[in-house]
Amino acid sequence: MNIGTIIGYLAAFLTTIAFLPQTIKTIREKKAEGVSLIMYTIFNFGLLGWIIYGFYTGSLPIILANIITFIFAFIIWVLKLRYH
Amino acid sequence: MNIGTIIGYLAAFLTTIAFLPQTIKTIREKKAEGVSLIMYTIFNFGLLGWIIYGFYTGSLPIILANIITFIFAFIIWVLKLRYH
Repeated sequence: MNIGTIIGYLAAFLTTIAFLPQTIKTIREKKAEGVSLIMYTIFNFGLLGWIIYGFYTGSLPIILANIITFIFAFIIWVLKLRYH
Repeated sequence: MNIGTIIGYLAAFLTTIAFLPQTIKTIREKKAEGVSLIMYTIFNFGLLGWIIYGFYTGSLPIILANIITFIFAFIIWVLKLRYH
C-alpha cells in the first residue's frame, strides 16, 4: 500500500468516525437544538448517492465508509425529528 | 458522462452543500450547544486528509469538494469553540 492509499484510508476513517461523537452526544442529551435538520436531510441523500456510486463502480471502501456514516447520520436525523 | 459519474457528482454535491445550512444556522443562532466539538475536530482533520489525497492522486473533484466542505466545517468548528 503506497502513502497515497494510506492517506485516503485514514481520511475515510476520520470523516466516517467523526459522526459517532455527534450521535452519542445527541442520544445522551436527548436534544438536538443546535443540529440542522436540513443539513442531515441533504447529507443522508448524499450518502445514499455515494452508496449507489460505490455499487456502480464496485468500490467496497466507498460502500462501507458511506454505509457506516449513513447509520450515524440517519440516527442523528431521526433524533432531530423526534426532539424537534 | 455515464450515469455512474453523474451519481458520483450528485452525491459529492449533496454531501458538500449539506454543511451550508448548519453553518448558516450556527451563525444566526449565535450558539452551537447541540453540535459536537469532537465531531468537527475529527471531521476537519479527515477533510484535510481528503484534500491531501486529492492532490496526491491528482483528482480535482476530490480537492474542490473537500475544500468547500472544509470551509463550512471549519467555520462551524470555530463558532463551536467561541460559543462553548
